[in-house]
Amino acid sequence: MKPNGVITLLTDFQEIDGFVGIMKGVILIINPDAKIVDISHQIPAQDIEAGAFILNNSYRYFPPGTIHVAIVDPGVGSERRIIAVASDKYFFVAPDNQILKYIFHSIETLTVVEVLNNQYFLKAVSQTFHGRDIFAPVAAHLSMGVPINYFGREIDNYDRGKIDQPVVSDNIIFGKIIYEDKFGNLITNIAEELINTPISSAIIGKTIINRLSNSYNEVAIGNPLALIGSSGNLEIAVRNGNAQKQLSVNRGDIVTVKI
Amino acid sequence: MKPNGVITLLTDFQEIDGFVGIMKGVILIINPDAKIVDISHQIPAQDIEAGAFILNNSYRYFPPGTIHVAIVDPGVGSERRIIAVASDKYFFVAPDNQILKYIFHSIETLTVVEVLNNQYFLKAVSQTFHGRDIFAPVAAHLSMGVPINYFGREIDNYDRGKIDQPVVSDNIIFGKIIYEDKFGNLITNIAEELINTPISSAIIGKTIINRLSNSYNEVAIGNPLALIGSSGNLEIAVRNGNAQKQLSVNRGDIVTVKI
Amino acid sequence: MKPNGVITLLTDFQEIDGFVGIMKGVILIINPDAKIVDISHQIPAQDIEAGAFILNNSYRYFPPGTIHVAIVDPGVGSERRIIAVASDKYFFVAPDNQILKYIFHSIETLTVVEVLNNQYFLKAVSQTFHGRDIFAPVAAHLSMGVPINYFGREIDNYDRGKIDQPVVSDNIIFGKIIYEDKFGNLITNIAEELINTPISSAIIGKTIINRLSNSYNEVAIGNPLALIGSSGNLEIAVRNGNAQKQLSVNRGDIVTVKI
Repeated sequence: MKPNGVITLLTDFQEIDGFVGIMKGVILIINPDAKIVDISHQIPAQDIEAGAFILNNSYRYFPPGTIHVAIVDPGVGSERRIIAVASDKYFFVAPDNQILKYIFHSIETLTVVEVLNNQYFLKAVSQTFHGRDIFAPVAAHLSMGVPINYFGREIDNYDRGKIDQPVVSDNIIFGKIIYEDKFGNLITNIAEELINTPISSAIIGKTIINRLSNSYNEVAIGNPLALIGSSGNLEIAVRNGNAQKQLSVNRGDIVTVKI
Repeated sequence: MKPNGVITLLTDFQEIDGFVGIMKGVILIINPDAKIVDISHQIPAQDIEAGAFILNNSYRYFPPGTIHVAIVDPGVGSERRIIAVASDKYFFVAPDNQILKYIFHSIETLTVVEVLNNQYFLKAVSQTFHGRDIFAPVAAHLSMGVPINYFGREIDNYDRGKIDQPVVSDNIIFGKIIYEDKFGNLITNIAEELINTPISSAIIGKTIINRLSNSYNEVAIGNPLALIGSSGNLEIAVRNGNAQKQLSVNRGDIVTVKI
Repeated sequence: MKPNGVITLLTDFQEIDGFVGIMKGVILIINPDAKIVDISHQIPAQDIEAGAFILNNSYRYFPPGTIHVAIVDPGVGSERRIIAVASDKYFFVAPDNQILKYIFHSIETLTVVEVLNNQYFLKAVSQTFHGRDIFAPVAAHLSMGVPINYFGREIDNYDRGKIDQPVVSDNIIFGKIIYEDKFGNLITNIAEELINTPISSAIIGKTIINRLSNSYNEVAIGNPLALIGSSGNLEIAVRNGNAQKQLSVNRGDIVTVKI
């Protein structure tokens, strides 16, 4: 698969300090025709789980040949590894810290390379800003067609992480909250395919919801509802409200669905 | 008029969850040469009025042939309609919920189409993210030159909304606050043309301002002033302060100008 | 040096009101092929020092021929001047208010022009939004190859500002905090070159740090550390914490380093 010139950026850098702009400058020096797209730079600081979830939600909506750069990197400056990954459709460049865990579990054939060849880095590599000094130039060189194995040696002991899969027992599904969005909607790990039938209840904390809605408008304002969200997973929401706060539920908490 | 490849995005999606990035990916799959420009993704949640105001402030500063996508869409997933609009200079794609009301009242000849043809949508359309599944692909196909009437049937019963026009009576103008910006500056619906003469006073809440300033520097720090803002309308501000808070005035409140 | 089509934007406009999007539209009308890159629009309101610091951190990472537009402009609408600057590698367009002070002190041969020729402005120039009416069109015309002296007369009495240089006395360096980033890390004006040797201590407020770290991971969580940051200057940080708050130190405060 050949790069198409599109490079996406997902980080916890926020905007204020200009770090994302600097990365774009570094990319444009190497590939003046790169098309750089921001996915999010507001990932909560060091929240690798949130970065992994949002990347997984996003990457497949880009043209084949897109290079996805994902940097939530509490280990910057330590011995943690940086990896470059090629699948049949996309490239990824990220720290080897599970931020790609959903990609590892959903895409089968992958080439994973430990990024080591400093010929593709900026000349001076800082201890604290590998986004500028390593990730950006590596992604830019990848986008210019440099073969992935030029960046380092292929490895198979990268950190695949673990995906919390729901447990299905007869007509009961035990799932978990894996992400809360900016509105406080609670996204579970229960995929649409597991519940393509009416449900008799969804239980989360002390709240029982008796059916699956098609849209927010189907319940009264302030009431909780369950629906299949845009991620394709079961979500718990409160119409015009914040489910996370109102239901006192957090990431990792259990959701029980009876079919 | 022909599309020029520029697509602007105005939403209340914020950045954190990556929704805007996903929309850009969808656009680039269909039109790899699209130039996508963000107007704002920080519109207050579900604040259609604010979205309408900012779109109206912005759209005319783009090249002819630009496609403006405006999504503040509390009715997503319900039966609300989506419309595509062509004027002699610009295209618009938006929910039929008055977010285009200023366009409807300032541009005369318009073609308005109800977007129905799912040939131009993503294959699976979610209940909650039409930005990704409908708006982005429709805008991208429009930018590729697909004629607007291919997207659905022309309608004339779209929601034009109402514009609060100021009332002029002898030498008094009764206007309203229609938007408060991030600094707390209060923008009225009183256009420059109505007051192209010295004013004797502008009264807002309990505050009386006795003249029109040319710039913030003309009053002391902390004092209120009236000036023609960059929108071309009368604005009430406080130098280095927040007029909305300091004057206890809000959107919808009345401003009385004596000439 | 010839412009390369890249225009960067650094402002304190934030995103919500759409001002940055409008500037991009104005640029694209004049130069449809411009590549516009955001450095930051979250500079604290009217904080020229912060804008100057971030621009200085960023500009050199862009391709030669890039035009950098920097607008933190409390004097908009007053008689303050606007300047366009050409060095051997970059162009700058900014108010004449010291936001370019680091550029003036680090680049030797510069052409500085007072921007006066309203042939390159929008037809109607507002009192409050020169970003749209002057900065954007001037940058766009520059990017199209209009020679810099077409925009106005060359001047040499522009405001160079003052750079707080550290004072070195035997084996003691007296520096200052010149910026605090979003994490509360404190960046000093002490460049790496001054301390390319082990230090015996860095004293800031009531805190004494006894060595230079290579990465955050070298101290326990919650402890202060000193390291060379990505700006190339000495930084004081707290691992996984906010040094500014925890050490009660602010911009302008003194840092004493003993070698």
